[in-house]
Amino acid sequence: MNIAMLGSGFIARFYATSLHAQRRIDRVTMVYSRNKDNAQRFAKDYGFQDFTDDMEVAINHSSVDVVVISLPNHLHEEAVAACAKAKKHVLCTKPLGRTAAEAKRMLDLVEEAGIFAGYLEDLCYTPKFLKSLESIKNGSLGRVLWTKSREAHPGPHSDWFWDKEKSGGGAMIDLACHCIEIGRNYIGKKVKPIEVMCWADTQVHPIEAEDHAIGLIKYANGAIGQFEVSWCFRGGMDLRDEVMGTEGTVWINNFLRTGFETFTTGGGDGYVAEKTEVNKGWLFPVGDEAHELGYPNMFTDMFSALEEKREPLETFYDGYVVNAILDAAYKSAETKLWEPVVFEDWRGEDGVTYEKHNASYDADHFLIKEEKLPNGDKKLILKHKISGELSQKVTQA
Amino acid sequence: MNIAMLGSGFIARFYATSLHAQRRIDRVTMVYSRNKDNAQRFAKDYGFQDFTDDMEVAINHSSVDVVVISLPNHLHEEAVAACAKAKKHVLCTKPLGRTAAEAKRMLDLVEEAGIFAGYLEDLCYTPKFLKSLESIKNGSLGRVLWTKSREAHPGPHSDWFWDKEKSGGGAMIDLACHCIEIGRNYIGKKVKPIEVMCWADTQVHPIEAEDHAIGLIKYANGAIGQFEVSWCFRGGMDLRDEVMGTEGTVWINNFLRTGFETFTTGGGDGYVAEKTEVNKGWLFPVGDEAHELGYPNMFTDMFSALEEKREPLETFYDGYVVNAILDAAYKSAETKLWEPVVFEDWRGEDGVTYEKHNASYDADHFLIKEEKLPNGDKKLILKHKISGELSQKVTQA
Amino acid sequence: MNIAMLGSGFIARFYATSLHAQRRIDRVTMVYSRNKDNAQRFAKDYGFQDFTDDMEVAINHSSVDVVVISLPNHLHEEAVAACAKAKKHVLCTKPLGRTAAEAKRMLDLVEEAGIFAGYLEDLCYTPKFLKSLESIKNGSLGRVLWTKSREAHPGPHSDWFWDKEKSGGGAMIDLACHCIEIGRNYIGKKVKPIEVMCWADTQVHPIEAEDHAIGLIKYANGAIGQFEVSWCFRGGMDLRDEVMGTEGTVWINNFLRTGFETFTTGGGDGYVAEKTEVNKGWLFPVGDEAHELGYPNMFTDMFSALEEKREPLETFYDGYVVNAILDAAYKSAETKLWEPVVFEDWRGEDGVTYEKHNASYDADHFLIKEEKLPNGDKKLILKHKISGELSQKVTQA
Amino acid sequence: MNIAMLGSGFIARFYATSLHAQRRIDRVTMVYSRNKDNAQRFAKDYGFQDFTDDMEVAINHSSVDVVVISLPNHLHEEAVAACAKAKKHVLCTKPLGRTAAEAKRMLDLVEEAGIFAGYLEDLCYTPKFLKSLESIKNGSLGRVLWTKSREAHPGPHSDWFWDKEKSGGGAMIDLACHCIEIGRNYIGKKVKPIEVMCWADTQVHPIEAEDHAIGLIKYANGAIGQFEVSWCFRGGMDLRDEVMGTEGTVWINNFLRTGFETFTTGGGDGYVAEKTEVNKGWLFPVGDEAHELGYPNMFTDMFSALEEKREPLETFYDGYVVNAILDAAYKSAETKLWEPVVFEDWRGEDGVTYEKHNASYDADHFLIKEEKLPNGDKKLILKHKISGELSQKVTQA
Repeated sequence: MNIAMLGSGFIARFYATSLHAQRRIDRVTMVYSRNKDNAQRFAKDYGFQDFTDDMEVAINHSSVDVVVISLPNHLHEEAVAACAKAKKHVLCTKPLGRTAAEAKRMLDLVEEAGIFAGYLEDLCYTPKFLKSLESIKNGSLGRVLWTKSREAHPGPHSDWFWDKEKSGGGAMIDLACHCIEIGRNYIGKKVKPIEVMCWADTQVHPIEAEDHAIGLIKYANGAIGQFEVSWCFRGGMDLRDEVMGTEGTVWINNFLRTGFETFTTGGGDGYVAEKTEVNKGWLFPVGDEAHELGYPNMFTDMFSALEEKREPLETFYDGYVVNAILDAAYKSAETKLWEPVVFEDWRGEDGVTYEKHNASYDADHFLIKEEKLPNGDKKLILKHKISGELSQKVTQA
Repeated sequence: MNIAMLGSGFIARFYATSLHAQRRIDRVTMVYSRNKDNAQRFAKDYGFQDFTDDMEVAINHSSVDVVVISLPNHLHEEAVAACAKAKKHVLCTKPLGRTAAEAKRMLDLVEEAGIFAGYLEDLCYTPKFLKSLESIKNGSLGRVLWTKSREAHPGPHSDWFWDKEKSGGGAMIDLACHCIEIGRNYIGKKVKPIEVMCWADTQVHPIEAEDHAIGLIKYANGAIGQFEVSWCFRGGMDLRDEVMGTEGTVWINNFLRTGFETFTTGGGDGYVAEKTEVNKGWLFPVGDEAHELGYPNMFTDMFSALEEKREPLETFYDGYVVNAILDAAYKSAETKLWEPVVFEDWRGEDGVTYEKHNASYDADHFLIKEEKLPNGDKKLILKHKISGELSQKVTQA
Repeated sequence: MNIAMLGSGFIARFYATSLHAQRRIDRVTMVYSRNKDNAQRFAKDYGFQDFTDDMEVAINHSSVDVVVISLPNHLHEEAVAACAKAKKHVLCTKPLGRTAAEAKRMLDLVEEAGIFAGYLEDLCYTPKFLKSLESIKNGSLGRVLWTKSREAHPGPHSDWFWDKEKSGGGAMIDLACHCIEIGRNYIGKKVKPIEVMCWADTQVHPIEAEDHAIGLIKYANGAIGQFEVSWCFRGGMDLRDEVMGTEGTVWINNFLRTGFETFTTGGGDGYVAEKTEVNKGWLFPVGDEAHELGYPNMFTDMFSALEEKREPLETFYDGYVVNAILDAAYKSAETKLWEPVVFEDWRGEDGVTYEKHNASYDADHFLIKEEKLPNGDKKLILKHKISGELSQKVTQA
Repeated sequence: MNIAMLGSGFIARFYATSLHAQRRIDRVTMVYSRNKDNAQRFAKDYGFQDFTDDMEVAINHSSVDVVVISLPNHLHEEAVAACAKAKKHVLCTKPLGRTAAEAKRMLDLVEEAGIFAGYLEDLCYTPKFLKSLESIKNGSLGRVLWTKSREAHPGPHSDWFWDKEKSGGGAMIDLACHCIEIGRNYIGKKVKPIEVMCWADTQVHPIEAEDHAIGLIKYANGAIGQFEVSWCFRGGMDLRDEVMGTEGTVWINNFLRTGFETFTTGGGDGYVAEKTEVNKGWLFPVGDEAHELGYPNMFTDMFSALEEKREPLETFYDGYVVNAILDAAYKSAETKLWEPVVFEDWRGEDGVTYEKHNASYDADHFLIKEEKLPNGDKKLILKHKISGELSQKVTQA
């Protein structure tokens, strides 16, 4: 397919590089930038002719099948509206909106226009994420109890990110959108997020927005989705996920510890990996950064979904849900209360029951725990079903 | 020194084994257990004569210099009172009390009696903790912004732990006492903990108490001490700490990933490590469990402090502070509000100022961020000191 | 491009899956198998029409641009000859031949026919390998002194691998071909491999060929390329590389420790990763196996090279060099001597000088070592340039 | 016990610090150094009175029970002779001698004198080593096939190490003595080492001795003990062991990856860990270096063995065996041949049979391998017992 890229910054380059790598069939053929020189440089770098500083020109170009929005957050809605008007399919970078209201308007626009709309949530497409998600859906972890997604680094690449008005917030709007959607996938997209407790602070930088935040999202089935985000982290890009289930655990490290370690006294040169802070001593490069960040899998899903007339894994509706949760998180950080997640439009399950099935040891007792002692004996912790009395029972090995 | 051990269970054995290892001079010479057979077996296993089922007899025995309390939580106060009465030095296992009120009474008892009182908070004595703490105090991380301490495993060894009345709670009283004190040490013991937000739930087990909890403690200097505790974790004993500072990061893994990895198809036998759940496939033993858990360093500090007439690193006052924070955490889990930490007796600093020193780029601008781009260029993110306007500046390499 | 696949086994499927993934433009359109049912099943699984049990039919099919040889080792030469005859471009799986003589004949065939010939050495295309190689070529490690490549697992998937006649050997011909070429790349392909010392034994399996081997290859510049290969390893697929240079170190773990760890009590199902041996306890899946093994990058290079009329990174000549080294290794394992690597056709540098540049401390002394002592003092180890006498000098901090 | 320390350098300090830590009962009470000032400073630092520059005075001092030799290698024999003459128990640092002949004379001296003699091979006392050894002896790995012990760092601390005459060699005599004894323990001390193949070179430093060496030791039961040693490694102290058995694997990392990771921009100060090369970026300290290196366990075994009138785990005879293997390694590095290990005095088993027990699949076939395919099918690789023909058999899942 032919792609018009809106935007020519860091993320647009990451996208274009991924799209043009590995002999893929889809090509960027047009770029729009607010700055014409940047547009021209981008077109030249990626080997195509058409560039413009008029967004409508890019979107409406007859050869363009799909528009990719890689613009600052405050320009997403306008771009989506232009795509809807032009009936061009659209893929929008994360976060979808700065608020749920903004995201909802974008969702309505694409649904009314009947165009394909994909939400470019790359971290829900990393190889490790996809494989772990499949394994969890297959039951390897039992019932999911808790997920933790952490994204922390020394701060974003462009000035507009640091401007609360343009980006819609700080580290939370920038990073927690990833973490929230990762947790939602593991817990189940149909399960309703109920309420959010969030701490956020501006601990280090001279900005208005938060540069560090931690949040807990409570889902209807009792599971907790935790996020930890920061622009104050030192040491590179910390991108880790964890899942606890009744039957197992997942630990994923996407960036700083991937089995690639190198030490250098300072010979060699330059670029080691995104957001690396030093270039000597022990370094932890990533083999294929774009792949570890999910870009190739994401675009494959998007274009294949479009062709196959199915929904992609990440839709504008998902983007809207994430914004609704973020709204609650921002509110909670101010009110210091658990804030409800407010949905104008909830499409998942309502009234999920949250039942625990206690394991019986015998007719009279629940089994709390069974363990093997150092000396080989087996110890059982039991609870009487009626009296509630606790007891233990040791069986000699 | 000669030691009377009160209690003969799992932790008493861990303590005694540590005390008798490595040709140490201090010896357990007397044991008390509520069950006389257990006391006798314990005495036999550790090679001494005196055992009893009368606590006062153990404490008052003429040869005993120091009493170690390894009893269930609900029996700590009574034991401390008996030591105070007998004017015998006392070391008490964690948590000190079930509540701050209980801990405060114990604190008062030992201070009034003028006896030495040590709080056996082993995880503040692990080799990694001590070394990282020293490094942080030397400034390697700059200003500490956030600490996270996580302790999670499949549940405790004895029945009384699962009984809310006896233990004072669930996973939080059992495990968060460690996490809280670890965070307090990193942030600084003089810095006042102000308020706590806590989520706790009983997600898996048929018990009244929580089996999973997450809390945030806000300190007077703006730092956050986070704890994550669970009795629902599958995979062994997850014991990890993290610290973020303005100038660096610490990651500690005390148990499951310590550079010792083994795979077995199932040959061999038995005990691999505390709380390991499986005995084939990939296993992660710990070289010297007691040492990694801090016992030898803890007892060395305690007995040396007693001889040197100085305070140990962990005192009954520290135990009291931990209980005060736990009280706030339990309250928060119920009220769903940030709850203040209430101190009857605060001995640290009051009114710590929390100032940020913004780095100037030039007379007119603050420097928000400086980074190296993939192409070698340097990019600066700046903020105008008066207008607050954000800008970026790229210097070609 | 349109591809004919010769072979329908494990590796043919891995290749085809990689070729058809991620919206790539090149497609397998024809398959040959000695067993017609297998050919048909393969064609069906990958969604194309043409299959045959006549190799010539597959190669000569008019739509076919490139032939991929995924046959057992003893059938490579015949297939290459058929491609040469048909003037069809050819990509051949590893090892190229069973011996250097066989490889040389294949090299001659393709060079005489003037067809493009690529050597499918996937492990020289893994993301980590490519990035580390670039970094080393940029000087980050200084002069390369030693490389170690290790590949060990519980044994191959197909019966013919275990048959010395068909495969050309055992674990060494199967795995060391990878290890040798990895080391050659790091050390420099122009540097001549001089001699080989190899130990090989059949330690476990009821076979004629070796199931465990270790070898040292000495290069003209004094560097050592070490390989360790085994079919006796328990615990999955151990795929690790190390490089030591005068200025740094590289450690790569391609499979068992890549930042993806999961524990399961045994819920869920099936396939975790290639050559995993267990399906409960701690497991170490790989996010995208094919990518971590280098397939996508390898095919991208091959087809791009063909279009761009340049050599691919791995050529039939490289395959021949590897076979020459393997011949020496097999001979050494028998004679127990360092055996020379014999080249009928050496295209790299001859007479590389191997000079050491000793660092001077002052006019009279070489500097052997400089180190910082625990107390902060600096210690120098010096050697007198004429007398050779060693001395040390400590400068107080 | 009261200890006389011979030597006051790096290793003497490590020993004394370990001996005086953790409230141990044994104390250094006397120190000898060739330099009286050093002796005095040492005595002062460790808090005792007696120091001397006359070795005999130290050894013969009436209060001294045990002598610890921490002298350069060329002074070991003289010191052992003096201990034998004085009938004082002796513990000698590694390597025992510079050659097997020297070690044998020391062995004879102590055996004739009837004194207790311990070989201070600390790395056979690390917590991880001891636990893994116990597990292997319990059968968790089945039959041991191969061990690899690696010790590499940027070179030793004192000038005499770099002097071939004084130390007896280079990196090999310094480091491979550890590696050899680690392998011997895993494989079994009773199993005879038969022959050695060794490569050694001076790749970097202006010295006569080797600064990099790799060796393979073949044991009577077919197992291979591999060592890799270097003074050219960059990045800290690389101390890793691996064991492959028919039923499992052990991977130990003693120093650079022990679950303690820290990043610093360069704040803080000084000493991070032994042989660390940098003090900013990612650093990998060790919690308790002395313990991870085995010193406390080693001295505990030595003094306990002396009291209990039993042999310690590491004896002078073990030191002699190690020297005999090193002799063969040095010879092999020159002759480029597998050199036999020559024993004047072999006390282990002779004529160990090396039989393989092939697993039968049925009456006619051996089972070579059983594996699970990605699609769930089970594949068996079989060998006909008489014809030797290989076949495979797939069972649908």
